[in-house]
Amino acid sequence: MMKFAIFLFFAAFIPAKYASAQTCVIENLIDEKVQAAVDSKVSSALSKVQLMCTSASAAGADASCPSGYLATGCACGMACGSWDIRSETACHCQCARIDWTAARCCKVAIVG
Amino acid sequence: MMKFAIFLFFAAFIPAKYASAQTCVIENLIDEKVQAAVDSKVSSALSKVQLMCTSASAAGADASCPSGYLATGCACGMACGSWDIRSETACHCQCARIDWTAARCCKVAIVG
Amino acid sequence: MMKFAIFLFFAAFIPAKYASAQTCVIENLIDEKVQAAVDSKVSSALSKVQLMCTSASAAGADASCPSGYLATGCACGMACGSWDIRSETACHCQCARIDWTAARCCKVAIVG
Repeated sequence: MMKFAIFLFFAAFIPAKYASAQTCVIENLIDEKVQAAVDSKVSSALSKVQLMCTSASAAGADASCPSGYLATGCACGMACGSWDIRSETACHCQCARIDWTAARCCKVAIVG
Repeated sequence: MMKFAIFLFFAAFIPAKYASAQTCVIENLIDEKVQAAVDSKVSSALSKVQLMCTSASAAGADASCPSGYLATGCACGMACGSWDIRSETACHCQCARIDWTAARCCKVAIVG
Repeated sequence: MMKFAIFLFFAAFIPAKYASAQTCVIENLIDEKVQAAVDSKVSSALSKVQLMCTSASAAGADASCPSGYLATGCACGMACGSWDIRSETACHCQCARIDWTAARCCKVAIVG
């Protein structure tokens, strides 16, 4: 009976000791791997965030950006530099009898 | 005594074997979960990075963007197309006796 | 022999029970740590994504942005407001005998 008691003691004690040491090792392992994976993924992802621009021109006093783009500036025919932007996405040239209007349009894009 | 020796052998050997196999399984589990979580979080975060623009106009030859915005272009009264940007955030129209100035102002924003 | 059989039963059974409970605990631990680490890293990374702008001017009817920047608008001498953007990165003023051209140039930058 004495031997069995010793056995029970070990059977209960040894795996518990292993479990506890392992949990700590595992926590550190998780922390390390998470930090490394996140750092590398995030920095490679950030390099894909880029400004993308295009121009849209039209006859008359109004020109609209393609969907998803915002107007960052406008050019007008007849040397006119007076304009305003409507709904954040369209250019309107204010001089009389404007022959053409161009919108400069940009957005943030995830590239590659 | 013989039985006790066999017991000791098993008590020392079995948990160690379990621990070793488990560590490998755990490492793979961590790697998988980290990669999946990072991929999904990063791509959903990137879609929130957007260009945001607004306009600011003022009487006279100068107009300033709201805090946090940079000037991407300027419009001037009197059909004037000659301007410059000061401190990256303000528009100055160069023609004489300008009646109004408008700054087009944009920033990168985290949306939603 | 009876005692030895009891021992074998325990030696095989106890570590397996521990292993199974541990795997579940570990999975949850990984999930928690991954989510927390990713959330904090991603949000601190996103705050570094900013719009950066500069101006480039030149004598004549053409001005080019520095490498990496896109043109978001143009200013011209002689009050001219008629311009177009070439290759997304250069400004061209269209009025005759233009004395100077300025390009407004922006990009998305990772700051700090």
